Amino acid sequence: MSETWLEVAPDAEFGPATLPYGVFSTDPEGAERRTGVAIGAYVLDLGAAARALDAPYAEQVQGPTLDAFMAAGREVWDRVRADLQRWLGDPAFEAAVRPHLVDRGSVRLHLPFTVADYVDFYASEHHASNVGRIFRPEQEPLTPNWKHLPIGYHGRAGTVVVSGTDVVRPSGQRKPPTEPAPLFGASVRLDIEAEVGFVVGTPSPMGEAVQVDDFAEHVFGVFLLNDWSSRDLQAWEYVPLGPFLGKSFATSVSPWIVPVAALEAARVEPPAQDPEPLPYLKGAQAWGLDLRLEVYLNGHRVASPPFETMYWTAAQQLAHMTVNGACLRTGDVFASGTVSGPERDQRGCLLELTWSGQEPLVLPDGTERTFLEDGDEVTITATAPGPDGARVHFGEVTGTVLPAR
Amino acid sequence: MSETWLEVAPDAEFGPATLPYGVFSTDPEGAERRTGVAIGAYVLDLGAAARALDAPYAEQVQGPTLDAFMAAGREVWDRVRADLQRWLGDPAFEAAVRPHLVDRGSVRLHLPFTVADYVDFYASEHHASNVGRIFRPEQEPLTPNWKHLPIGYHGRAGTVVVSGTDVVRPSGQRKPPTEPAPLFGASVRLDIEAEVGFVVGTPSPMGEAVQVDDFAEHVFGVFLLNDWSSRDLQAWEYVPLGPFLGKSFATSVSPWIVPVAALEAARVEPPAQDPEPLPYLKGAQAWGLDLRLEVYLNGHRVASPPFETMYWTAAQQLAHMTVNGACLRTGDVFASGTVSGPERDQRGCLLELTWSGQEPLVLPDGTERTFLEDGDEVTITATAPGPDGARVHFGEVTGTVLPAR
Repeated sequence: MSETWLEVAPDAEFGPATLPYGVFSTDPEGAERRTGVAIGAYVLDLGAAARALDAPYAEQVQGPTLDAFMAAGREVWDRVRADLQRWLGDPAFEAAVRPHLVDRGSVRLHLPFTVADYVDFYASEHHASNVGRIFRPEQEPLTPNWKHLPIGYHGRAGTVVVSGTDVVRPSGQRKPPTEPAPLFGASVRLDIEAEVGFVVGTPSPMGEAVQVDDFAEHVFGVFLLNDWSSRDLQAWEYVPLGPFLGKSFATSVSPWIVPVAALEAARVEPPAQDPEPLPYLKGAQAWGLDLRLEVYLNGHRVASPPFETMYWTAAQQLAHMTVNGACLRTGDVFASGTVSGPERDQRGCLLELTWSGQEPLVLPDGTERTFLEDGDEVTITATAPGPDGARVHFGEVTGTVLPAR
Repeated sequence: MSETWLEVAPDAEFGPATLPYGVFSTDPEGAERRTGVAIGAYVLDLGAAARALDAPYAEQVQGPTLDAFMAAGREVWDRVRADLQRWLGDPAFEAAVRPHLVDRGSVRLHLPFTVADYVDFYASEHHASNVGRIFRPEQEPLTPNWKHLPIGYHGRAGTVVVSGTDVVRPSGQRKPPTEPAPLFGASVRLDIEAEVGFVVGTPSPMGEAVQVDDFAEHVFGVFLLNDWSSRDLQAWEYVPLGPFLGKSFATSVSPWIVPVAALEAARVEPPAQDPEPLPYLKGAQAWGLDLRLEVYLNGHRVASPPFETMYWTAAQQLAHMTVNGACLRTGDVFASGTVSGPERDQRGCLLELTWSGQEPLVLPDGTERTFLEDGDEVTITATAPGPDGARVHFGEVTGTVLPAR
């Protein structure tokens, strides 16, 4: 759909090519939560519109979260999207639909679904190589397994927060190389990681692997994710069992979930994979995605990471995550890992952008940054090709650093 | 309480000193789930008894899970336990209580609560040292951080299953040292890990650390946990971000949750900690626990791990897990890591018991085991000192290995 009877500017953030889902409220307490669809300057109250138009899935799209809608499966997702395109495209529906439009500037947005498990991958070859060079300079940058499987680990689902939530600087142990023992205190190397997140709608049974080509049957939508990271906590704790407190204090997600169906025009072949992956990691469909991320620090753009450079696709990650028989639940989130391209200004975290603090960023306002300071605001945005030259928009994930308690 | 009007054998599995909570059903579909308390050969239907006796918390202990009861907080937990001791101890209550007793042999037991996040620690010095010697023979067995902080990582909450659930042998990538590239197939080194699990009742807000001495305010109960592990998948994948598919296919838990209050007589000083922990890991209360685990393979006891030898206590783990501001949610599970003592027959996993397969176990039936074979059944039990010489019982966590699919 590229036409709508609604007044939507051609360069509007959420034109009719995106139609992302979120959860909004308009009451002061944020208690009456409803499913919404963003379009231009509006949010469509999806449950109310579906009831008004006697849609059979009206119950599943009521809110207060997207959980029931996500669990309903791809047939329902496709039907709802087709109906939205019809309702917003065909002027015959204007009278029925317009009463359920809300000014987008007046709503509060919430975490749109219940996060089940959260897995974070490590799928950018550029990022993993840079981190390897920084953290393990005496070794090969990529570990021997890196090109054979999508490396990932479980993060903390309970600290996934919606965009706009302030992030308290974490405290913990760090051990500078010059100290004989670890110190305790506020993190001094607080970082971001610009990532793309995927949320599972359709579950899978325990004991059964999900195939690469079943990606669009299971994954409901795509969003932006900032995997806040404390590099000093992480460096001291992560051998041998991986990141823990260096990551678990907060993970921010964008409030609008872009349907997988909105990304047809963004699908590209991922980079060539050498060595050839094992058969369970191969599929007939191309699930590379041409998303252009932008990272802003206090309003200044500091990086433009290109998602299409990611070595492992989300479809491969899904297959890998379940090949051992682990089940999927509605609300399972998996994220790409930091998106970094080959160029210096394409790196998705400060660890890489400042080369572990050795090469400070100079912002246009004249200030310098190695890692985040209290009060810093970080915002990540993205767009992707849509149909007929339109752009699909992801909105933003933003957060401000509060001082340690 | 050591007396009850109920017919309970002195050596019964769940005497009046334990009074653990679980979720049971008696209908064929297992749909009508209720909160139960195990006592001798019976299950007390707690919700029904609370309603019959007009207890103010009756609504919170109805089921279908323990979630509402766990979230109610320690004051309610203490009151329910005191009431249970009174109801089962004072013959004046027999007429009101007896109608709500169900034959324990006739019930089906379910996963008793919704698992929020699942964190697995690595708190046995003997286990960590043995694993270090086996996995990293060229290095010091303990990593430099091990005695400064309780090492842990997040596991997969969605594959936590109740005792009795069969476990399908996982498939995945392994790379024998003799092979140039990884192979795909069923795990050939399937193992168990005998652990003790803790479940959070009272949540904590994001940004605030929980103190070591607030352990009993937040932790609802204790249970047994088998952290099934595929050593071949784990060895190939775990550097640099930790265990993932080697663990995420299944984690089994015992169905009866022992209240923290039942463990007063089991509390002991943990082993001396050297170097002295940082202040946030120190408390005034002793939270070592004198639990005696037993591990059975096909009915033969193969290990007797002593929990009181664990280097880090659960109270220290709780404080560590939140020191960075990570919140707690009702249903958060954290586990001790494999319980291994200093003696060979005190090791809580086959990796250690068979020294990575080099020293097979010979079972009394004449068969040998390095790692688990299809059809093997593993059962873990535990008891602890209770009041007046009684024993507190944890029941068992059991599971049988099914062939890979």
